[in-house]
Amino acid sequence: MAYPKTVMKLIDELMKLPGVGSRTADRLAFHLLRSREEDALALARAIVDLRKQVRYCSQCCNVAEADPCAICGDPAREVDRLLVVEHPKDLLAFEKTGYRGRYHVLHGRLSPMEGTDAKQITLNELVHRVAADKPREVILATNPDLEGDGTALAIFEQLRNLGARVTRLARGVPTGSTIEYANSAVLSDALHGRTEMERWQVGDS
Amino acid sequence: MAYPKTVMKLIDELMKLPGVGSRTADRLAFHLLRSREEDALALARAIVDLRKQVRYCSQCCNVAEADPCAICGDPAREVDRLLVVEHPKDLLAFEKTGYRGRYHVLHGRLSPMEGTDAKQITLNELVHRVAADKPREVILATNPDLEGDGTALAIFEQLRNLGARVTRLARGVPTGSTIEYANSAVLSDALHGRTEMERWQVGDS
Repeated sequence: MAYPKTVMKLIDELMKLPGVGSRTADRLAFHLLRSREEDALALARAIVDLRKQVRYCSQCCNVAEADPCAICGDPAREVDRLLVVEHPKDLLAFEKTGYRGRYHVLHGRLSPMEGTDAKQITLNELVHRVAADKPREVILATNPDLEGDGTALAIFEQLRNLGARVTRLARGVPTGSTIEYANSAVLSDALHGRTEMERWQVGDS
Repeated sequence: MAYPKTVMKLIDELMKLPGVGSRTADRLAFHLLRSREEDALALARAIVDLRKQVRYCSQCCNVAEADPCAICGDPAREVDRLLVVEHPKDLLAFEKTGYRGRYHVLHGRLSPMEGTDAKQITLNELVHRVAADKPREVILATNPDLEGDGTALAIFEQLRNLGARVTRLARGVPTGSTIEYANSAVLSDALHGRTEMERWQVGDS
């Protein structure tokens, strides 16, 4: 005894999604079976539309409505600074800071554990772009963790002789946090990167 | 700044799934964007096929390849016992016990908290079936929790005058468990439903 083939097939496909095991796939499949038909079909349609219609900006590699994207096509944005992020969501976060330079979206990070290598991220595109456009500065804003740091180092190796200044985000105690609960790696970073009070301005960016 | 429309649309649709919040939807959407195109399209196709091709057995309401399903169409199965379950998965679990009667699949349970009422489960179908087929016994095997018990009570109210004996699963300590870790509701059920040692046979069913 088992479920009908159409149900088993959907469960198999759902289990290919990250974080979806057999129990979750089962629950989602029966939800899709019992939910309103237009909702289920709308999800299927949205997946197809995503794959058929989504564009990538040929400059920054971000997902975009058009090519070049709204940021790369905006003449008011500084062309000589590139901020390199792992994910489109990270770009949205930096947009809220008022950063006015441009971006490069890697769409992932190097992770030997997860089997992600340089061909699966847009590292080659970044190297070609830096070589061609000669930005003054490339800011590496990969996540401040093991894989993010590894990815930043690998990028730096490939960019170091292309003439751009390569920087990375400051490490320290996050504004609004409590020293008591900060872990020793964070405090060690904050000590190591300490700055002169004289140079400090509130709202510095 | 936000994601392109196709990405936002997919995130919206994914968020309608149970247990999928905005962060999970975001992660799934970008997974579907970066995964192999055939995998993403296979998922969409499986959803459509599910809704277009899946059948329900007109007798037991289970998902099925054919109507009647393999169980309802099997002349060797007892026709005078109906085991009522919430979910097709519960039916599969009872099939492993060697139960040889038939089933009725509710596809849910009554849950005022989740807004599920009698029209969303196959309660009417069950009442009509019991009235028409006059089975000797209806065994209520809803889950042994608050909503499951409430559903069983509501079903009993509708079946009590139709001539069938209506029973429910025994409550007690689960075989293989440890008394020390059983909670008081379980022990209380087990005490309340205690049976004579003389009537006890190992492997009783």
